[in-house]
Amino acid sequence: MKTEYPFQVRWGDTDAAGIVFYPNFYKWMDDATHDYLAQIGYPSSKLFAEHKIGVPLLEANCVFKRPLLFEDQVIVQSFVEELRNKVFKIKHEFIKEEQIVAEGYEVRAWTSFEGKPKANPIPDVIREKMLSQVGTVEG
Amino acid sequence: MKTEYPFQVRWGDTDAAGIVFYPNFYKWMDDATHDYLAQIGYPSSKLFAEHKIGVPLLEANCVFKRPLLFEDQVIVQSFVEELRNKVFKIKHEFIKEEQIVAEGYEVRAWTSFEGKPKANPIPDVIREKMLSQVGTVEG
Amino acid sequence: MKTEYPFQVRWGDTDAAGIVFYPNFYKWMDDATHDYLAQIGYPSSKLFAEHKIGVPLLEANCVFKRPLLFEDQVIVQSFVEELRNKVFKIKHEFIKEEQIVAEGYEVRAWTSFEGKPKANPIPDVIREKMLSQVGTVEG
Amino acid sequence: MKTEYPFQVRWGDTDAAGIVFYPNFYKWMDDATHDYLAQIGYPSSKLFAEHKIGVPLLEANCVFKRPLLFEDQVIVQSFVEELRNKVFKIKHEFIKEEQIVAEGYEVRAWTSFEGKPKANPIPDVIREKMLSQVGTVEG
Repeated sequence: MKTEYPFQVRWGDTDAAGIVFYPNFYKWMDDATHDYLAQIGYPSSKLFAEHKIGVPLLEANCVFKRPLLFEDQVIVQSFVEELRNKVFKIKHEFIKEEQIVAEGYEVRAWTSFEGKPKANPIPDVIREKMLSQVGTVEG
Repeated sequence: MKTEYPFQVRWGDTDAAGIVFYPNFYKWMDDATHDYLAQIGYPSSKLFAEHKIGVPLLEANCVFKRPLLFEDQVIVQSFVEELRNKVFKIKHEFIKEEQIVAEGYEVRAWTSFEGKPKANPIPDVIREKMLSQVGTVEG
Repeated sequence: MKTEYPFQVRWGDTDAAGIVFYPNFYKWMDDATHDYLAQIGYPSSKLFAEHKIGVPLLEANCVFKRPLLFEDQVIVQSFVEELRNKVFKIKHEFIKEEQIVAEGYEVRAWTSFEGKPKANPIPDVIREKMLSQVGTVEG
Repeated sequence: MKTEYPFQVRWGDTDAAGIVFYPNFYKWMDDATHDYLAQIGYPSSKLFAEHKIGVPLLEANCVFKRPLLFEDQVIVQSFVEELRNKVFKIKHEFIKEEQIVAEGYEVRAWTSFEGKPKANPIPDVIREKMLSQVGTVEG
């Protein structure tokens, strides 16, 4: 599954150098992951409300190639690059005018917040969706 | 009770006009209120963990007199201006180099998050602290 | 002119009480104002790049009626309520499922950032657009 | 040079899972780097105002070991791990109650914003400070 999450750079995302303040790229990766879960049929609001499941971060990385500016239209393409028992690594590519302006990844644990947070195996029904070739983007 | 909450403007608080992005003033008012509650002996972490009490907003207002810049040292002076049965209004003055650069207020309800959120009377022990003339600031 | 700015509540907009952290409402009012300027044909990126014009805040206020939750779909309806020589007051209504969940306003000065920031008269061409009855929303 | 940047987790840093929203760790790494530059005598406000020098990101990474909670007291220990001609890599360790709760790094380019942004060699006077063994932290 490969999904697309479009967004526009907001005024408040910029800093005094006139470009996007970099932690916002992680905010958008987080948004894109929640959007990805919704697109495979498991919105994280529902996962949390019904199953007390969240997907906290083990690691996140981003490489910045070109700055983003106020009002830029950007698409984040996301797909699961690695799928382990309780952990998945999701790749995010930030695309502006057909160029990759940044690329990052998040490593997240499938975690129960029932009592003390604890990593759980990712259910098969989720694994199949993540590995499916169907998506909003070809490839 | 009148308290002082000091902070420094961070790079990420600025925007492309080179000054502080205005919603951050509300973030600082929120910080100052949590600091106020901690200073009267009732940190909101404890109120929430032990009593499921939070203080959500009914209204917030801020008047901006001078812009703040990166690395500015600022103090927020806070005091309860109005104290009703289940609601309090807390005033915040932003002071930089002895000048008021912004002033705002928050109207907050003493709310139980036990089940459906519901406003509760503010306990007397809290009311007394709020009305006390003792504080980190004279006056 | 009355415009509509739609948004969805993101995970990062929430706080540990499970509802939206209130300063985000001001971020959305700011977004809605920039969207308003774009819709009347004067995107603030262009105003700033070409004319060094920005619209900093003199005051902002919001009254909160119902909390917003993660993944809520919200529309902000915005219109200029008061138009003075160098200053405008823009009203914002937050609508979720046809109910007003919050309403606020911003008072902003038409400001030149050419040298020392200085309020300028709002140009007639902008005034006419702001007062026009045409918009994305009836009424 | 090794510096310490202390901070306290604010209410607005948390999310609906009750823990810190992860992009905030990058905001704190950014704060710690600006603090680092100030501690070696070159506050980034001055670098930007006087020399149009900024330090935009090429890459940032963080590994999360334990969640942070509202009101946690945390120290970020920062030091330059790699020093190239126009680029430096700064390591950040987040310490709470003597345990590392997260560790990350930022790769930043010494960049002139005079006209089109362009990486410049890091001046020797800065290099010496970065490599100096003197600091607010032993080691």
